[in-house]
Amino acid sequence: MTETTYDVVGIGNAIVDVLAHADDALLQENGLAKGAMTIIDADRAESLYAAMGPGIEASGGSAANTIAGLASLGGRGAFIGKCRDDQLGNVFQHDIRAAGVAFDSTPATTGAPTARCLIFVTPDAQRTMQTFLGACVDLGPEDIDTDVIAASEVVYLEGYLYDPPRAKEAFIKAAQAAKSAGRRVSLSLSDPFCVDRHREAFLDLVANHVDILFANEDEIKSLYQVDEFDAALQHVRGHCEIAALTRSEKGSIVVSGDEVHVIDAEPVEKVIDTTGAGDAYAAGFLYGITQGYDLATCGRLGGIASAEIISHFGARPEQPLAQLAAKVVSGT
Amino acid sequence: MTETTYDVVGIGNAIVDVLAHADDALLQENGLAKGAMTIIDADRAESLYAAMGPGIEASGGSAANTIAGLASLGGRGAFIGKCRDDQLGNVFQHDIRAAGVAFDSTPATTGAPTARCLIFVTPDAQRTMQTFLGACVDLGPEDIDTDVIAASEVVYLEGYLYDPPRAKEAFIKAAQAAKSAGRRVSLSLSDPFCVDRHREAFLDLVANHVDILFANEDEIKSLYQVDEFDAALQHVRGHCEIAALTRSEKGSIVVSGDEVHVIDAEPVEKVIDTTGAGDAYAAGFLYGITQGYDLATCGRLGGIASAEIISHFGARPEQPLAQLAAKVVSGT
Repeated sequence: MTETTYDVVGIGNAIVDVLAHADDALLQENGLAKGAMTIIDADRAESLYAAMGPGIEASGGSAANTIAGLASLGGRGAFIGKCRDDQLGNVFQHDIRAAGVAFDSTPATTGAPTARCLIFVTPDAQRTMQTFLGACVDLGPEDIDTDVIAASEVVYLEGYLYDPPRAKEAFIKAAQAAKSAGRRVSLSLSDPFCVDRHREAFLDLVANHVDILFANEDEIKSLYQVDEFDAALQHVRGHCEIAALTRSEKGSIVVSGDEVHVIDAEPVEKVIDTTGAGDAYAAGFLYGITQGYDLATCGRLGGIASAEIISHFGARPEQPLAQLAAKVVSGT
Repeated sequence: MTETTYDVVGIGNAIVDVLAHADDALLQENGLAKGAMTIIDADRAESLYAAMGPGIEASGGSAANTIAGLASLGGRGAFIGKCRDDQLGNVFQHDIRAAGVAFDSTPATTGAPTARCLIFVTPDAQRTMQTFLGACVDLGPEDIDTDVIAASEVVYLEGYLYDPPRAKEAFIKAAQAAKSAGRRVSLSLSDPFCVDRHREAFLDLVANHVDILFANEDEIKSLYQVDEFDAALQHVRGHCEIAALTRSEKGSIVVSGDEVHVIDAEPVEKVIDTTGAGDAYAAGFLYGITQGYDLATCGRLGGIASAEIISHFGARPEQPLAQLAAKVVSGT
């Protein structure tokens, strides 16, 4: 197998987050499904933004957060996603490049503006996400540079990509290019409602394309339509090489054939905002995998990255994750 | 005197901040004057942004921060400032209105984009600001609604307004309208280098127009070109009705004729980012003044607001300041 240029290339929606504190009453008044990611149109985005408190803007997007986290750990990351040539697109582009990630997707010059996700953070640190996909709907197979895919040890795909119409073609093209080059394919299920929307497609992907699967408890139960976490665990064991299942404060379970690891959550002084917790876990885990660490260490790296992200507002690291990771891996 | 609609109307630059962590080496490499606010052009803004790490965007602007802080304390605030009809202008407009501030300035539909301030936050929590004024240069006397000025108990002006070319005309128009209506005029000196640039104008303002002056130690020493804080203090005593002089961790000194109060700084667990510290002090102080509290209480309110702002990234409050103020004032 040829040398790789990147440890992981992520493909996902290029989104700028707008984060604000909110109380539960505001969620109820506006009919928001707490904890979920809901797709909204431009009009709804405008009316919800008007109802939202003062916010901050920060680059987001699930896979983009993961690759930024990987880079913060010292990994070599690339990202593919679609923004527009507008102010928020400029912010997205700046932040991911400034994080040390290769990002060469051409911004759209016409059509909808750069995507934004309105994130309502309640006092319990839970986040409720309302996404206007904007320019993300333009991502298609023509945006997939198969040379970049072939030069990456892992291609990482967010399940959210099944929402915009043409992204799944990009998704499949990337997965096939990775397979042809002997690379591994990783998928995050993203959100239980997203799994509901695309269950058949995801079941097929997990069974036939995915080597490393990320899901939280709700997502994996939704995928297999079971009520118990353990039942979902038994299903997934036979379906992909490695599954990393996150359970919030209960930590994570890593399964690979007969191997099962139960990883405790990393202690956090105060949980401020859970936005990006799963993305950060995937960052730590994939960094571990591509550095050749054992699965238990990968799980711990995921937990450490996740703990940093939930201890502040926003989904990208505030301090270099490599420093935090040093306590479980030598040489960093 | 007629009833007021607003406690304070602020006039200032409408700016979106871009905040990022930076080390001292980055400041040196890029020739940035640590702790200062420097005006930059569009090209320099682009090259500095390229050199900057991943950031977050948050509404800023000195007087705008003060009025947002006043509203968070429960005060009635209005703001006048110029943004453009672009994405960052929309962010600025949303955030200040969502904070409960009346903001009716018409955005520019042509010309430079909404202003942004690149803020480099070093590990010592000091902020170094590089401001591209953008649409702010369009603010002129035609933007001053004298009815709003006359309906406000205090008009609050930031010294930074002397940098864009026509804003000082707006400034003078507002000060005169306030005087005619029997209202009070307040000024913040903003920055020692800004004082250097406009010393004669500021000396005239302080002597002839300003009732309530805000300055930090460096600014007031720069105004009177003296080396000792105490020397500056003796100068300012005779020049305006009330002067509130902030000294970072040494707290503040409030002077009004023979009355002098020495206010200790509010303890802060960890100082994260000093951006907006002075703006928040002015918010607390002016809230106190317009609520009729004595000067010592006004100074303590300033200190409490300031302590909240420096304990997190960004210049606008993360938690309602009214809750924090309750410990020094009854009935809130």
